[in-house]
Amino acid sequence: MKLNVRSELLCHFGPDTEVIASIQAAASRDQTILSERLLVTPSYELVQDAPDARGERRFRTRLSGEVSIVYEALVDNGVRAELPSRAAQSGWCELPQDVLQYLTPSRYCPSDKFVRFAAREFGDLRHGGARVRAVVDWIYDHVDYEPGVSTAETTAERTFVDRAGVCRDFAHLGITFCRALGIPARAVSAYALDLDPPDFHAVFEAFLDGRWWLLDPTRLASVGGLVRIGVGRDAADIAFLTTSGPCTVVAKTVAVEAAAESLAA
Amino acid sequence: MKLNVRSELLCHFGPDTEVIASIQAAASRDQTILSERLLVTPSYELVQDAPDARGERRFRTRLSGEVSIVYEALVDNGVRAELPSRAAQSGWCELPQDVLQYLTPSRYCPSDKFVRFAAREFGDLRHGGARVRAVVDWIYDHVDYEPGVSTAETTAERTFVDRAGVCRDFAHLGITFCRALGIPARAVSAYALDLDPPDFHAVFEAFLDGRWWLLDPTRLASVGGLVRIGVGRDAADIAFLTTSGPCTVVAKTVAVEAAAESLAA
Amino acid sequence: MKLNVRSELLCHFGPDTEVIASIQAAASRDQTILSERLLVTPSYELVQDAPDARGERRFRTRLSGEVSIVYEALVDNGVRAELPSRAAQSGWCELPQDVLQYLTPSRYCPSDKFVRFAAREFGDLRHGGARVRAVVDWIYDHVDYEPGVSTAETTAERTFVDRAGVCRDFAHLGITFCRALGIPARAVSAYALDLDPPDFHAVFEAFLDGRWWLLDPTRLASVGGLVRIGVGRDAADIAFLTTSGPCTVVAKTVAVEAAAESLAA
Amino acid sequence: MKLNVRSELLCHFGPDTEVIASIQAAASRDQTILSERLLVTPSYELVQDAPDARGERRFRTRLSGEVSIVYEALVDNGVRAELPSRAAQSGWCELPQDVLQYLTPSRYCPSDKFVRFAAREFGDLRHGGARVRAVVDWIYDHVDYEPGVSTAETTAERTFVDRAGVCRDFAHLGITFCRALGIPARAVSAYALDLDPPDFHAVFEAFLDGRWWLLDPTRLASVGGLVRIGVGRDAADIAFLTTSGPCTVVAKTVAVEAAAESLAA
Repeated sequence: MKLNVRSELLCHFGPDTEVIASIQAAASRDQTILSERLLVTPSYELVQDAPDARGERRFRTRLSGEVSIVYEALVDNGVRAELPSRAAQSGWCELPQDVLQYLTPSRYCPSDKFVRFAAREFGDLRHGGARVRAVVDWIYDHVDYEPGVSTAETTAERTFVDRAGVCRDFAHLGITFCRALGIPARAVSAYALDLDPPDFHAVFEAFLDGRWWLLDPTRLASVGGLVRIGVGRDAADIAFLTTSGPCTVVAKTVAVEAAAESLAA
Repeated sequence: MKLNVRSELLCHFGPDTEVIASIQAAASRDQTILSERLLVTPSYELVQDAPDARGERRFRTRLSGEVSIVYEALVDNGVRAELPSRAAQSGWCELPQDVLQYLTPSRYCPSDKFVRFAAREFGDLRHGGARVRAVVDWIYDHVDYEPGVSTAETTAERTFVDRAGVCRDFAHLGITFCRALGIPARAVSAYALDLDPPDFHAVFEAFLDGRWWLLDPTRLASVGGLVRIGVGRDAADIAFLTTSGPCTVVAKTVAVEAAAESLAA
Repeated sequence: MKLNVRSELLCHFGPDTEVIASIQAAASRDQTILSERLLVTPSYELVQDAPDARGERRFRTRLSGEVSIVYEALVDNGVRAELPSRAAQSGWCELPQDVLQYLTPSRYCPSDKFVRFAAREFGDLRHGGARVRAVVDWIYDHVDYEPGVSTAETTAERTFVDRAGVCRDFAHLGITFCRALGIPARAVSAYALDLDPPDFHAVFEAFLDGRWWLLDPTRLASVGGLVRIGVGRDAADIAFLTTSGPCTVVAKTVAVEAAAESLAA
Repeated sequence: MKLNVRSELLCHFGPDTEVIASIQAAASRDQTILSERLLVTPSYELVQDAPDARGERRFRTRLSGEVSIVYEALVDNGVRAELPSRAAQSGWCELPQDVLQYLTPSRYCPSDKFVRFAAREFGDLRHGGARVRAVVDWIYDHVDYEPGVSTAETTAERTFVDRAGVCRDFAHLGITFCRALGIPARAVSAYALDLDPPDFHAVFEAFLDGRWWLLDPTRLASVGGLVRIGVGRDAADIAFLTTSGPCTVVAKTVAVEAAAESLAA
């Protein structure tokens, strides 16, 4: 599907704040950037990082005071397949080397603490795909989507207790349970079609049958309408802005639309 | 310096346990493996990972029951420089792209929670090198080296409260404070000369003046006698054994000696 | 039922350690102490606290080095009723004033964090008694009784994640869920008939229909065979020994037997 | 000193919310209520608890929708002495029985975790009074008074890491450190003269030389201008409103003034 994505940030930074921005569509194998535009006002020198192995693209800069950052792109996100229940869980020896890092616990996903729960709750299922789908369903059934309960410091452990959170909290739970089951899982930030209210979205992906599968336990977006931005171990890696000092987001607008061509199709 | 390193593990694994072992000397730029030998008994098929960008080498396998793993190597670890106080803290725009991941919080190093403390305690120092040295001294002065207080789940936050721990806890505090100051920092597992009692050692390194500097806040080993094994965000990434199921370490012996040639020098 | 209870502690204390000991059977309304004996060797001056409103009796002293503490008593614990499902949950205005303190969170029972979970899981049940019984069943069904997982610092929040613990952890979960439902609940230490292996036991009680009901979510002891020792908000209040400094329990023996007379009946 | 205190709460309660209100001046030995008035609008049946041993007075009720609660009183708070540095720390055997409960950790004051830190930082001081004053000074020196950092769930452990909080967080740290030193300490809610901005205040008190001493580590109020409301183990016990369900504080006004007579004196 071809999608027009657009984000507009108006932020207030302390003097000389180091900034890493992760708002650009990824140049990953599963999507193609047809055109894009990045505008920072007033003008600052930007260091544009090359896409890494995962396709992630970020820019770095040093900002002060009020700054507007606008990004827009036309992206073809191809066809995103749904995870089949029969997808096989890979043995660790079969995993690509660069996938191993997604097996271990991270800041917001202390999977080491959930080994017993995950085995109790999802261990009986035979296939990896069925397990991961059960994880996603469990989260949807047991956690309320409710803004204001979690903060920037909320871990999956905390959300497991609170039973409420937003998209990043849902993704953290999914990642945590998967890793606790020995399945590699990672966080993905995305532009998402039909997300209401529109915002940056956080989902996760699990590695099964030799590839990554996108999953959204909030059910707020369809996998088919996602445009990847960043990928990482958890929200610590994929924040849309990582700053060395105080930063206030004064205004934020995110918009995603099916491009005319796609609409016609 | 040329060093003979040797580790001997006798472990008991549950049936068909997936294992990632990180006990081999790294093939990093700052050390040369002159010879080595790895012996797993009984014999199992091993997947030997190629050294990654950091030089880390791990092997993967699937083990059952009692297994002996012996590794020995002769390594030239070159000359390891001490971090100078005047070393400059890099702006984030100046950092190599693959160093950025060591700025963000991780499982055991929730640096996001320590920004205020780190600024209060170390913020007045002008140079990055002086800051990091002050971090290392602070840890040595305020934390007791005491086995038995921390567990596999202990975070730097917890050690900051407990004021006691072992080498990995000391390293986690160092990493956490550095990241809270905007300085990239990461965990390193190592063979360490003169460590008493001998064991795998955990230290950390900080990125300043365009390179990584090894630091040991426990002061139990000299940087000059370290042979790198693994590198990662924190202990979650550099465990000598990561397993998918129960594993009991029945016996563990680690030995490090200056090689004859070095002794002569 | 008449029960002979006996505990024998051999402890090593640092010099001049302040000690509060809670090992004596309570002089509560629901049990009668027929005879008892307390022996501390070597001899130390003891401050024997009078039974408080709950009947709890503790002694205080200052100990050094190796000390043996032996307590034995013959207690008639009367007839302990099981909580009926139809027991009514009291409105807060109806509660006796001294029960109010058992509504609020405590060190090991952060009930404020479980309001949503408790409402989701137990909120549909109509009667307080049914709710509390569902709480007790939930704990038994979802948590493994397994020594070695929890420590002296483990909270109910942690056990909720770990899904494993011992009697005090089970009690903490019960207390936490009850308070989260607005039902007063408190921790009780006890001598327990037929507990295997024999030890001090921890259970909890909930306030419904104008009285306290004893409950054991581990199902390791029957309510009828419990002899109360201490009562408090959680384990922080009912430890068998609270000390101002280091104390090693070198040996601990606990024994509970039905008295001859009871056996005959 | 004679003080006019007044609080005005406008709250919105869910249907039939159980409420425990702790806003009335305590009838404790160290202060005399000369006159007072409590007005709940619309009118509801109130259960007025008798003053307990600590003098605390609370009322209970069941409220729905928008309710205004106004309390005013003229109180003589006598003369409040400052804790002398030479005040002696009592041995546990010397403590009144009802003071023992303030030695153990509570929801927001996990003093068991701070034994090492407290001994390291304050252990060298000889007298209990000097220790407690050092505790109060340490908090003032190392923690920023900053609203918005802490929440209703913030513990002393968290504030110790954050190094920022409000009056209740400061009090929690004081209580935690004192208990970790073996000194009984408890939380006190109060009306406070000259507090800016005016609000309910939280302070703590430590038990030394056979009595309780009020302390305010924020230095925002003088001990002489405090009118006690509630006393408890920590904030869980002294909230101005404890409710069984949702409650929004729409408006809150607190005012404290020296009474005319006092002004004249």
